Amino acid sequence: MSAIRVAQNSRATITSLISLMNKSCTCPAHSHARTVSKTHRGPCSSHPHAHAHHQHHHHHTKEGAEPDMAHEYAFEMASSTMRFGEGVTREVGMDLANMKAKKVLVMTDSNIAKLPVMQTVVESLKRSNVPFVVYDRTRAEPTDKSFQEAIEFTKLHKPDVFVAVGGGSVMDTCKAANLYFNYPDADLLEFVNAPIGKGSVIDKDLSPLIAIPTTAGTGSETTGTAIFDYEPLHVKTGIASRKMRPTLGIVDPLNTRTMPRQVKIASGLDVLCHALESYTALPYQERTPRPANPAERPAYQGSNPISDIWSLEALRLTVKYLARSANDPLDAEANEQMCLAAAAAGTGFGSAGVHLCHGMSYPISGLNKSYKHPEYNVGHKIVPHGISVAVTAPAVFKYTGEACPDRHFKAAEIFGADLSKVRKGESAGPLLADQLRKFLSGLGVPDGISALGYTKADIPALVKGTLPQHRVTKLAPLQTGAEALEKIFEDTLKNY
Amino acid sequence: MSAIRVAQNSRATITSLISLMNKSCTCPAHSHARTVSKTHRGPCSSHPHAHAHHQHHHHHTKEGAEPDMAHEYAFEMASSTMRFGEGVTREVGMDLANMKAKKVLVMTDSNIAKLPVMQTVVESLKRSNVPFVVYDRTRAEPTDKSFQEAIEFTKLHKPDVFVAVGGGSVMDTCKAANLYFNYPDADLLEFVNAPIGKGSVIDKDLSPLIAIPTTAGTGSETTGTAIFDYEPLHVKTGIASRKMRPTLGIVDPLNTRTMPRQVKIASGLDVLCHALESYTALPYQERTPRPANPAERPAYQGSNPISDIWSLEALRLTVKYLARSANDPLDAEANEQMCLAAAAAGTGFGSAGVHLCHGMSYPISGLNKSYKHPEYNVGHKIVPHGISVAVTAPAVFKYTGEACPDRHFKAAEIFGADLSKVRKGESAGPLLADQLRKFLSGLGVPDGISALGYTKADIPALVKGTLPQHRVTKLAPLQTGAEALEKIFEDTLKNY
Repeated sequence: MSAIRVAQNSRATITSLISLMNKSCTCPAHSHARTVSKTHRGPCSSHPHAHAHHQHHHHHTKEGAEPDMAHEYAFEMASSTMRFGEGVTREVGMDLANMKAKKVLVMTDSNIAKLPVMQTVVESLKRSNVPFVVYDRTRAEPTDKSFQEAIEFTKLHKPDVFVAVGGGSVMDTCKAANLYFNYPDADLLEFVNAPIGKGSVIDKDLSPLIAIPTTAGTGSETTGTAIFDYEPLHVKTGIASRKMRPTLGIVDPLNTRTMPRQVKIASGLDVLCHALESYTALPYQERTPRPANPAERPAYQGSNPISDIWSLEALRLTVKYLARSANDPLDAEANEQMCLAAAAAGTGFGSAGVHLCHGMSYPISGLNKSYKHPEYNVGHKIVPHGISVAVTAPAVFKYTGEACPDRHFKAAEIFGADLSKVRKGESAGPLLADQLRKFLSGLGVPDGISALGYTKADIPALVKGTLPQHRVTKLAPLQTGAEALEKIFEDTLKNY
Repeated sequence: MSAIRVAQNSRATITSLISLMNKSCTCPAHSHARTVSKTHRGPCSSHPHAHAHHQHHHHHTKEGAEPDMAHEYAFEMASSTMRFGEGVTREVGMDLANMKAKKVLVMTDSNIAKLPVMQTVVESLKRSNVPFVVYDRTRAEPTDKSFQEAIEFTKLHKPDVFVAVGGGSVMDTCKAANLYFNYPDADLLEFVNAPIGKGSVIDKDLSPLIAIPTTAGTGSETTGTAIFDYEPLHVKTGIASRKMRPTLGIVDPLNTRTMPRQVKIASGLDVLCHALESYTALPYQERTPRPANPAERPAYQGSNPISDIWSLEALRLTVKYLARSANDPLDAEANEQMCLAAAAAGTGFGSAGVHLCHGMSYPISGLNKSYKHPEYNVGHKIVPHGISVAVTAPAVFKYTGEACPDRHFKAAEIFGADLSKVRKGESAGPLLADQLRKFLSGLGVPDGISALGYTKADIPALVKGTLPQHRVTKLAPLQTGAEALEKIFEDTLKNY
């Protein structure tokens, strides 16, 4: 077991060795006339190697290290203002009037445009005499092309405030439109995560954006993330910056009642993975490099004591309410609690980040040949985001269990595992994986990636599509290269 | 028991009756073509009368009610961006440079001005070439006069960004200076809570303010509240608005290590009461009136599912770490966890509000004749805020227990009560009160208000000083008039 742990922690070990070779500890703590903190509590604090690693870093390094090899020592928690309540959508016109909005761009999609939520929004804007235009051509699972179309519409209409009414796809498109409207000369790849895009830092405030989610899933109303398919490479990628966070999220459980059952399940599984991945993400103190300027601290920072609170709460709520909410459209309590769960998970992963399920989901959705999930009223093939993240979860958490067993045990317990019956030496990963399989099959989730049309022959392409997802995969609690990814994909061909 | 409950819930009952007499339910839910939600989960959801009350409101009212008698149906969660980490204070200069600050006003007090934290701040500003002036004359437990002096200094120097380095007194003074610098023609009472002040709504954005707390208590770095002694009336009062929230809270556990033991205890007891009061506050759905415009939704809204998460976490941390932190200045983990607890509690009560302990603490501090708490290096008599709130806690929660027993039982359990040993019919209030007495005496907190110099003869004045604290006392989970307050004060003459 110990040998395995050393191997799996090789990333931290290597970083630690590099640290030792450098000439100084730029740790700000040391410049602050104090003794060294002995309290590095992260997911893996009970891990002897992780601990040793920290001690090395703090005690034994000498003067003059490259600052960019130093470990992070702080985390930042920023989340959007959220208003929550049944019927609260109708306040949006007053909010816009309070903001003295002169021309609002309301962004939605062609399905949502026909639902009561849009009627409520439009009536509210009219009641408050707020001038607006509507763009209803956002795409479910947006692409660089659909982003570009929304950006062009925005440049044509020059709004001063944005309102997004929809699920993650609409909210993300709206964030991108806001960003590139405010950077009119930038190419779409300018702010896209490296290595796919240039990953430039957004250095000015964007226009105000009010997000009104119609799914309980993405949590996009609380985060600064926008995800899209970059079609030239057939992968999902995204833009992430605190500057893209909505100014206000209006979370109205009345708006999520109309979701078809399969949309509820897929959205809820996104919440589930946000919660599990952020809770098991690399602890923020193990992330490198420490930014030289706080503006460069990434949106996704690794797990931290505040994100943990949100992630665990979101996991508890999802385990308790997702099936109820999906199976009974009249279960108002379950529906409401899933809205809370989505926002809680968004707050958690918006700070901690996600890792392997999300990193691997992007090629699963992007390389899809012909799979079209039931009840998705779109004119194209689609593996819903929530399905593509959840399908790898059993294999992923079986794999990550060794890195922070305490957290995997705790998650398994939330699913209902009886920890008092865990045998001595039993591994946490497989235990959590079993719970996940039971949970996913109970919801009728397709049985592994083979049920989505993939065979063993596709795995090299799926691995190749995952490798550029650095931004998220590097937050896995252990270093995960091509070989490990290949094994996880194989393991996820069938789940049940 | 049932009769007592009816009497104690008279406020809700009366409101419910008024509701019945009105002509309509303006409940937005009803205008949204939906069936009535059956899920009012608040602290008191298990309370048969509270439940009946909701049903009345939703089911039996008719068209045309006064909107201002309608119950709230939404809550808003807004908290400052927080950066947390040992040594993170040194980043403040870069933050200010990123904000392109042209003239920063650094506010602190004469004690903190001599501590390493101010040296770190000043060095950081110089390193980033940020022009600044320092105001170090804020008062511990500020007054209208000390607020006014800070405001005048601000008007003289015309800063574009504020930095507060200190405890609640400094942060609150800085918020007030920011507010009245941006409303130069307003009288100090303009935005002070009614009925003491005019309670006007702050309708524009203030200047950016970065808060760097040096105590683990107030949570003022996350809230839009500023408290002061209004000397003409000998009571504490305050200003509360989301607009006053700091732009960024820099929470650096290194800055709280220097607190004297008694300051640590008093600060930590403030955290304790923030957590307990916000967790047991009136549920937001029972608050009246529902605001006509979202801008009028108060900062203190009543307990809600999000504030509950923060409040409970803060309570757990405080119970676990306060004594350790106070008793061992080298216990870095306990010190760090209390910083987190303070921020968590601030986020919780910043949304839910506080109630009786805080409402009653203001006259306890304000009418103080000569008590001077040990280890407080100030040139005047002082009952520290944390002591004046905690001293009434056993009597307060004994009293409020009937309103939401589940929550009082849960809090008692966090203190260590064994709920499996609770006798059938045993009341939650006294159980929690016992736990609180044990906790407070263990920390050496003065034995009731008699230990602070008050006698039974002072109680009418203390009651009179509490009654105008509407803003907070109205958030108690049951209606509390002069008679009930008198009884609680009597009960708190001695605690042990």
